Amino acid sequence: MARISESTIRRLSHYYRVLREVEAEGRTLISSHRLAEREGITSAQVRKDLSMFGSFGRRGLGYNVAHLRTEIRAILGLDRRWRVAVVGAGHIGSALIAYRGFQEQGFDVVAVFDRDPERIGARIGEHVVQDVDALSGQALAGRFEIGVIATPLRVAQEVADALVAVGVRGILNFAPRKLFVPEGIALRTVDMTVEFESLSFALTQVGAPRRRRARRA
Amino acid sequence: MARISESTIRRLSHYYRVLREVEAEGRTLISSHRLAEREGITSAQVRKDLSMFGSFGRRGLGYNVAHLRTEIRAILGLDRRWRVAVVGAGHIGSALIAYRGFQEQGFDVVAVFDRDPERIGARIGEHVVQDVDALSGQALAGRFEIGVIATPLRVAQEVADALVAVGVRGILNFAPRKLFVPEGIALRTVDMTVEFESLSFALTQVGAPRRRRARRA
Repeated sequence: MARISESTIRRLSHYYRVLREVEAEGRTLISSHRLAEREGITSAQVRKDLSMFGSFGRRGLGYNVAHLRTEIRAILGLDRRWRVAVVGAGHIGSALIAYRGFQEQGFDVVAVFDRDPERIGARIGEHVVQDVDALSGQALAGRFEIGVIATPLRVAQEVADALVAVGVRGILNFAPRKLFVPEGIALRTVDMTVEFESLSFALTQVGAPRRRRARRA
Repeated sequence: MARISESTIRRLSHYYRVLREVEAEGRTLISSHRLAEREGITSAQVRKDLSMFGSFGRRGLGYNVAHLRTEIRAILGLDRRWRVAVVGAGHIGSALIAYRGFQEQGFDVVAVFDRDPERIGARIGEHVVQDVDALSGQALAGRFEIGVIATPLRVAQEVADALVAVGVRGILNFAPRKLFVPEGIALRTVDMTVEFESLSFALTQVGAPRRRRARRA
């Protein structure tokens, strides 16, 4: 399989959502046009994306919804369950723990850690917050595949190192800084500022398109 | 200017971050290769993206950091300030209000709303939480350009309608549902599940690449 870009994976997630909606509506076929219904995706892009993984559609008929959903589910690794450790029980951590959508998609939060003595021992939903120092021991080795970093940025790298040491293979980082992880560990950083910038871009471009000034570099 | 995809805007945000880092290091020139340093971006992609907006670089020398940063800042609409209303003072809303990075980029939270009587009147940082009903009046018309929806999903559409009625031009939605807004209103929905799916995809593809089964649609 060719190397797949982050943008392609985001589009696959989008197709997967649309397929779930359409399946819930009881439809059995879907066009690339319908799958493309989001800003910045064309039906040609849909066909190109899906062709990377094999031949899913039939020209003029569209894609079989159940089949395509099952295939994308497997491609995205959603045909199994993933054990997730959340480090940082502040606003972001608590929001993630409270959100049931993750569990529906196969992501089970199995442990929550914090450093703050006032938070350790507290309950968040069904979890009791554990001391983050517990991550440093070997007792937890191999217990999680995915670690979420929802800590202040000054401790984020240290937490990443601890998560890698207990064997997580993927890290979702909400701390607004660059983290370093060994080769083979998947790292995604969520930066909410990017979302705001996407909006300010859209609001700026509305109205008469600005003419870029020709300036020398 | 050609229509610009969501993926391109995300890459521009990424370039902007790298340029800020590199400028802070005191460097004046940057190569497309260095700008591309993130999974899924090639230096050819960088050159293509930047060429859309005009001629920024000089072959063999690279891009002028200060100049390119200023240009991308303007393209992303970050050369002005944006007034943001946050609706929903729960975990996500509170996390957004507490994060100073938005203000640094030009996004000022100027009002916070909630429906919960226990939250109304409470302070979050420098803000006093207001009753969301205040959004329905005309007193607030034109006071915000951007509205953030961090409410339970069952009220999200109603809140979107209220935000549009008081004149916001862009909405950032954290409620996991599809919202309908009039033409001309920019809408972005943040779905954390997509980030988890990107990780599970990466973890699934590690190791021997799976051979897609040839199956009929």
